[in-house]
Amino acid sequence: MADNSETVAELRQVVDRFVKERNWTQFHNPKNLSMALAIEAAELMEHFQWLDLEESRAVAQDPARLAAVAEELADVVCYALAMANELNLDISDAVRAKMIKNAEKYPAAEYRGRWGAGDRRSSEP
Amino acid sequence: MADNSETVAELRQVVDRFVKERNWTQFHNPKNLSMALAIEAAELMEHFQWLDLEESRAVAQDPARLAAVAEELADVVCYALAMANELNLDISDAVRAKMIKNAEKYPAAEYRGRWGAGDRRSSEP
Amino acid sequence: MADNSETVAELRQVVDRFVKERNWTQFHNPKNLSMALAIEAAELMEHFQWLDLEESRAVAQDPARLAAVAEELADVVCYALAMANELNLDISDAVRAKMIKNAEKYPAAEYRGRWGAGDRRSSEP
Amino acid sequence: MADNSETVAELRQVVDRFVKERNWTQFHNPKNLSMALAIEAAELMEHFQWLDLEESRAVAQDPARLAAVAEELADVVCYALAMANELNLDISDAVRAKMIKNAEKYPAAEYRGRWGAGDRRSSEP
Repeated sequence: MADNSETVAELRQVVDRFVKERNWTQFHNPKNLSMALAIEAAELMEHFQWLDLEESRAVAQDPARLAAVAEELADVVCYALAMANELNLDISDAVRAKMIKNAEKYPAAEYRGRWGAGDRRSSEP
Repeated sequence: MADNSETVAELRQVVDRFVKERNWTQFHNPKNLSMALAIEAAELMEHFQWLDLEESRAVAQDPARLAAVAEELADVVCYALAMANELNLDISDAVRAKMIKNAEKYPAAEYRGRWGAGDRRSSEP
Repeated sequence: MADNSETVAELRQVVDRFVKERNWTQFHNPKNLSMALAIEAAELMEHFQWLDLEESRAVAQDPARLAAVAEELADVVCYALAMANELNLDISDAVRAKMIKNAEKYPAAEYRGRWGAGDRRSSEP
Repeated sequence: MADNSETVAELRQVVDRFVKERNWTQFHNPKNLSMALAIEAAELMEHFQWLDLEESRAVAQDPARLAAVAEELADVVCYALAMANELNLDISDAVRAKMIKNAEKYPAAEYRGRWGAGDRRSSEP
């Protein structure tokens, strides 16, 4: 798996080079990028829209569908990287900091197998 | 910057461990994860909703706002990593493959400084 | 049901008056409104994010949850009305025209009980 | 304008008939409908993604673009109506109740021309 050796910075550079070669930095303000990210997230969602939960898991066994999903996921990640580039944010730091915060909010002992007794509206899992 | 040394796989493991410790894999089907990703993308967008484009750039100089944006971006990335974990997708491969496809679709010489003469509706930049 | 007598124009006026009384037309350009609409749609989605399909149907029998969902749906509708006000679009015409188009695209005889044999990715039903 | 005479209930019936003729009620659980609504909201947003605020206003003077936007807005409204049908919610009541709540939250005298001194992150206007 390429993910085993690829650093986040290397992926950021792929996106950064693409944007700079086209002089598209002018369009890459955070507002536009947040819209682009949300639009790609919706396109990813479109693949699962009418499926039940088990059918959505079965996508993993359908190579053609899985390839299409991978491409939409790549679009989401590319705009996340572009946003980090634009705002000069460290993704690894942000992810690790957020996961520590989540771990405090949802202690494993208390939340194992459930995520909010009585209140099913929650931003987790 | 931690992104310089952190591999994508290392970040994936942070998320994977968090999910497994809580036995939340049962909720992490691709349909649910695609919704979670889209919801976090909307929360990121909320920070820029009423700003004009220049004001959205200025967020980079506002430490409190930037920290809040970083946290929302981290949420987006975490669910992207969770989706990759669930479907066993290689993010680095997917991103590089998509950027090659984008480079063919939008040749730099042709698209420098613009992205679709006559048609402003486009999934790029 | 108030929907039986309330015209679309009457609801549009409620929103229009609210916006004008606050001099918020300046913020109600179509770009901002499209973001606001998408953000409210995500908040509506949040109520169903971790539920399975049957659990999501059961929300109809949970008065507290249903009231919260109604409020999010109202937010979505308000921004749809605001967009129509801003762009001077006739919602009733647009809905009827789109449903005629959908009926031609998905003939009832062919699509009864299914929505796209072989291709589960579709913008319908 | 058809909106002047069309009641919300009449529009709801157009959608209801379409769904029942195809036996699509089985797919129209609230979870799926909330995803469909969010996806259509993203498609509407796509028209304004790379425009600045003034360019997005100018869409009102571009008949071809405006027709495309009207169609996406219709899709959003159709799924909002379908959700109301599925959960048996009164849209007019919900909209009026929410606008009263908003008017209390944002008194006109205080919020005229602004929407949240010191905090630009807000779900209004």
